[in-house]
Amino acid sequence: MISFESDYICGAHPKVLARLCETNLEALPGYGSDRYCEAAKEKIRQACGCPDAQVEFLVGGTQTNEIVITTLLRDWEGVVAAKTGHISVHEAGAVEYNGHKVLEVPETQGKIPAEVLRDYLEGFYADDNHEHMVFPGMVYISHPTEYGTLYTKAELTALSEVCRAYDIPLFLDGARLGYGLASLQTDLDLRDIAALTDVFYIGGTKVGALCGEAVVYPGAKRPAHFLTSIKKRGALLAKGRLLGVQFDALFTDGLYLEISRYAIRAAEELKEIIRESGLPFFLESPTNQQFVILTNEQLKKLSQEVAVSFWEAYDADHTVVRLATSWSTTGEDLASLRGILARL
Amino acid sequence: MISFESDYICGAHPKVLARLCETNLEALPGYGSDRYCEAAKEKIRQACGCPDAQVEFLVGGTQTNEIVITTLLRDWEGVVAAKTGHISVHEAGAVEYNGHKVLEVPETQGKIPAEVLRDYLEGFYADDNHEHMVFPGMVYISHPTEYGTLYTKAELTALSEVCRAYDIPLFLDGARLGYGLASLQTDLDLRDIAALTDVFYIGGTKVGALCGEAVVYPGAKRPAHFLTSIKKRGALLAKGRLLGVQFDALFTDGLYLEISRYAIRAAEELKEIIRESGLPFFLESPTNQQFVILTNEQLKKLSQEVAVSFWEAYDADHTVVRLATSWSTTGEDLASLRGILARL
Amino acid sequence: MISFESDYICGAHPKVLARLCETNLEALPGYGSDRYCEAAKEKIRQACGCPDAQVEFLVGGTQTNEIVITTLLRDWEGVVAAKTGHISVHEAGAVEYNGHKVLEVPETQGKIPAEVLRDYLEGFYADDNHEHMVFPGMVYISHPTEYGTLYTKAELTALSEVCRAYDIPLFLDGARLGYGLASLQTDLDLRDIAALTDVFYIGGTKVGALCGEAVVYPGAKRPAHFLTSIKKRGALLAKGRLLGVQFDALFTDGLYLEISRYAIRAAEELKEIIRESGLPFFLESPTNQQFVILTNEQLKKLSQEVAVSFWEAYDADHTVVRLATSWSTTGEDLASLRGILARL
Amino acid sequence: MISFESDYICGAHPKVLARLCETNLEALPGYGSDRYCEAAKEKIRQACGCPDAQVEFLVGGTQTNEIVITTLLRDWEGVVAAKTGHISVHEAGAVEYNGHKVLEVPETQGKIPAEVLRDYLEGFYADDNHEHMVFPGMVYISHPTEYGTLYTKAELTALSEVCRAYDIPLFLDGARLGYGLASLQTDLDLRDIAALTDVFYIGGTKVGALCGEAVVYPGAKRPAHFLTSIKKRGALLAKGRLLGVQFDALFTDGLYLEISRYAIRAAEELKEIIRESGLPFFLESPTNQQFVILTNEQLKKLSQEVAVSFWEAYDADHTVVRLATSWSTTGEDLASLRGILARL
Repeated sequence: MISFESDYICGAHPKVLARLCETNLEALPGYGSDRYCEAAKEKIRQACGCPDAQVEFLVGGTQTNEIVITTLLRDWEGVVAAKTGHISVHEAGAVEYNGHKVLEVPETQGKIPAEVLRDYLEGFYADDNHEHMVFPGMVYISHPTEYGTLYTKAELTALSEVCRAYDIPLFLDGARLGYGLASLQTDLDLRDIAALTDVFYIGGTKVGALCGEAVVYPGAKRPAHFLTSIKKRGALLAKGRLLGVQFDALFTDGLYLEISRYAIRAAEELKEIIRESGLPFFLESPTNQQFVILTNEQLKKLSQEVAVSFWEAYDADHTVVRLATSWSTTGEDLASLRGILARL
Repeated sequence: MISFESDYICGAHPKVLARLCETNLEALPGYGSDRYCEAAKEKIRQACGCPDAQVEFLVGGTQTNEIVITTLLRDWEGVVAAKTGHISVHEAGAVEYNGHKVLEVPETQGKIPAEVLRDYLEGFYADDNHEHMVFPGMVYISHPTEYGTLYTKAELTALSEVCRAYDIPLFLDGARLGYGLASLQTDLDLRDIAALTDVFYIGGTKVGALCGEAVVYPGAKRPAHFLTSIKKRGALLAKGRLLGVQFDALFTDGLYLEISRYAIRAAEELKEIIRESGLPFFLESPTNQQFVILTNEQLKKLSQEVAVSFWEAYDADHTVVRLATSWSTTGEDLASLRGILARL
Repeated sequence: MISFESDYICGAHPKVLARLCETNLEALPGYGSDRYCEAAKEKIRQACGCPDAQVEFLVGGTQTNEIVITTLLRDWEGVVAAKTGHISVHEAGAVEYNGHKVLEVPETQGKIPAEVLRDYLEGFYADDNHEHMVFPGMVYISHPTEYGTLYTKAELTALSEVCRAYDIPLFLDGARLGYGLASLQTDLDLRDIAALTDVFYIGGTKVGALCGEAVVYPGAKRPAHFLTSIKKRGALLAKGRLLGVQFDALFTDGLYLEISRYAIRAAEELKEIIRESGLPFFLESPTNQQFVILTNEQLKKLSQEVAVSFWEAYDADHTVVRLATSWSTTGEDLASLRGILARL
Repeated sequence: MISFESDYICGAHPKVLARLCETNLEALPGYGSDRYCEAAKEKIRQACGCPDAQVEFLVGGTQTNEIVITTLLRDWEGVVAAKTGHISVHEAGAVEYNGHKVLEVPETQGKIPAEVLRDYLEGFYADDNHEHMVFPGMVYISHPTEYGTLYTKAELTALSEVCRAYDIPLFLDGARLGYGLASLQTDLDLRDIAALTDVFYIGGTKVGALCGEAVVYPGAKRPAHFLTSIKKRGALLAKGRLLGVQFDALFTDGLYLEISRYAIRAAEELKEIIRESGLPFFLESPTNQQFVILTNEQLKKLSQEVAVSFWEAYDADHTVVRLATSWSTTGEDLASLRGILARL
């Protein structure tokens, strides 16, 4: 049995785990006030080209989305997201649980086009009754998106301009940001993202850590008393070092990008294998997630040898499945998959 | 200046106001425990053919929607509503503020077709990841809808059957229920509605009262300690008599239906006037709200003599406006409007 | 049967009701945008000596407390209140339902002494762990308090100074403010209150209206997009006129104070009657509520002829009850009570 | 510099870390559905003597308190806790953020006496106005308490009986449960705790894990769709294995108790050292936390060589500090401390 189920099927990248072991017996203060957290924050600031950025560590993705969104939104505001956005569909209503509406807009391959956003905002303020409605107070995008697609620099710049014109923070969910940065088809680097957004996060869980997301506020739109707000939401880790040490490792000697590039190379080979097999792509993404359409019978057969993710029903007889690569994908995994798909 | 702006432009129907005046000096206990509340509840139970129904009074529509929904939903659930539903669009995110997502489904003229609901529920449970998503825990409809349209008995029966098959409460927002019951094109009466839904309300604010909505739970799906839940949401009226006396008046000698029928007759005349004027209907509804498309220039001109409601932009040059009738619409109002529209 | 149960046992003061009747058929826009709301706001600004104050109308007391508090508090903050404060004990957890903690401090006859507040705030910031705790972000007092007692000008000034030293808004719950202003033992007028607090409200429900509270923000600490925040909490009244017309009446020709003075005169007579009867006072308040200790047997007997409010158990054999006066208390009521208490 | 600052100053116990390393490269499904989570749950059920218990893993203590409490409480309920309880004071208002009030009762050395609880509940239901107040819907205790003290079997049994008489769940916060179980002065074991409570948790973070708390529902009071409720609160870990593997290690070969006993032995030596030094105990607890009163000058001096926790101001000149032991406390640490305290 091999697994392409997700990019979080294994523990931590060996170099990350090694750092946890090396530092395990050091006595450190709690709640993120240790020197590894500090060092990791500084390395991230450097990598982003933002010496003054505020950097904070949280444990997981839904938690990060919920906290970033609901500490910046004001009482009368909601967050604009793609209809297919993770916060709209796959987070069990976490934003709403925190008291704010997700305002859905149409998307194109998981992305919000700048003109769609502009129309939405113009329409909102043009409506005579808008004081009776939820104000758009933030824009949420993910990069890569739910479908593994990427914004181009031009697209992100255009979105950013609309947000700035309306003075609305732009928040980029980077749970898989590494794979976006390492994609062969991107023209965006970490500094661009820091320059074009108001807050974003650098995903650890899905890029080599046991857990952990690093939130970056490059500019002036920042939360006050963030530790208290995190604690209030049950999200403050006593052993904050667990996050600090891991991100310190990920941002030492370019490990974060090294992990991401490895997974992208594996994904390119995966795409080649799928193409060879003749199975139709639902979406041939430029990142580490690939979406394939299988007959339900093929899926049943495949599942006996390969763990994949159910994505969505395609029609009564077909299912979309996702295959993902990561640092833990081996050459043997890919070779086995080639054989299995060929036989399918 | 005449007004067709809404069905709540005046105070209370004279008979309702008279009862408030007559009972004004009676010393009564607070918080809805007075005899007028009790009498009104009993009259409503009779009118619904539900001698065991639980009846509760609240002040306004958004409040009622929010409280009914969030006291019946369980932690992991959200409420299914039409994409155009009042709770989705026009209540400033009140359901979400109370911690629950509104799950939008496609609609037809403001209504949720039973097959759309069935597909949604089937799709939800067919999704392998549905434990990561908000469970559909209630279905919200309004009758009349946002567009003044009505469910037929067959349509409501079909919806009710889907809800019962999934053991999900069906909630009918009846902020304008009277106009639905009095419509010339309905085959649904109050007893049908009580039989086919799990909770609904009989709107007072828009049907002759100063304020007030009467919530009816005809069956077993009822909230416990409702007074406490209402108070917790800031919605418990000290002088509960204000609601009790008004609903007692509305349900004495058929006043509620009398008011509604009067407004429907006025609406039929209003439709005739619009037809005569040649202005295009956006929607020719069977109830007391009519939606007309005006050029922006016509709107500007009209607004100098008639108060109407902005509904939505139709296109760059046209606007949809709403005209509503009520107990306070006079023959003179209609005659003036006929003249004004003719000149437009 | 006579009633001293509360100050909201009757409908509206006849002059208030008369204005509702006179204006009933005027067509007015909804949601508080009518001219009566505007006029009432202006009269209140005048009465407070604050031509620039923001004035807003809400329906009831718990609602007002909850909305004022949770729209001004920031994410990491709670509200400081007396242990016996209405929001601490008698509002079913409405502040907490809106996501914020009530931080209880010791009280003296329902009042927070300035030094108690200062100690609390000093202690909070002196605690090394205070980032793990709820920040004090507002101070809530009521005037009159739960026990009908009043702050002196010196006491309120001292409290105000502590709040300003810490830049924390001071919020005064004036559900019964009229009785405080009309008390024979106060040195505070409406202008003082406006000068010494950041937000307060002028209670209508308990001072002659059917419902309604007027919130006043005399200074810079104001909510943005308040209408949206109100609606989001289900508290926006469609027929806002109901509040506007009543407050317009209450602030015309000094009616608000006239009502309050009448009730205070009745309360002075009530105190005299209680003294004559020899029943022990639990608290002889300077306002319209009086608290008497009865044996449980006396209470049983009294309750057959007079409606009073259960306040709290005094001991196994005694109960504290409250008797309240209002505009609707008549000379006959007082004469009857004198006889009944004499016989008790 | 040595540290007695807390019981979470180091990473994971070496045996726990070893298991993380050994299992690191196994491909496992996410969200707690892996075989290590399953194995750990089964071992915990065995240890509790509850083959049918529901066991769930969460990341941290505040999160666990918040989730356990707010998924069992109903809309109209709050949670009863000691005035000094962790949820009352040190969790930044997390319970309130989730919409429920913490109902404080007096405590004795951090414990709630059964008779205090009984009086509180009796008083609540005796109050005629209790429908206007928050219903007590759960009782929260911690064992060890905030002060390191322990309930005796008789005390816990008495509390449990009161809770069962009122049908209110009893929840035991066991963030440091191991130290309670291993104390030389306890007569309670894990099976007793499972028998006497409705839900409790076995703390990992403070007893040898990097993070993690294991919630146990021994009886019928259980949450439905808990995964969804956890996710909704941002608390679902993608790599659930991180918790499963650690608890599997902690409950293999009695490691959890071994760790706890080691810390208790160290704590007994620590008490001896403090006694020798002549420093006054604030509280000489039977578990791994000791509370000592220092002059502020002593504290300043001590802090140059030993990390301790600020607990609370004792008076203007004295401070209470906490010293804690854990698996990572070494003989050298204790020897150094002996010397330092002797010199103090």
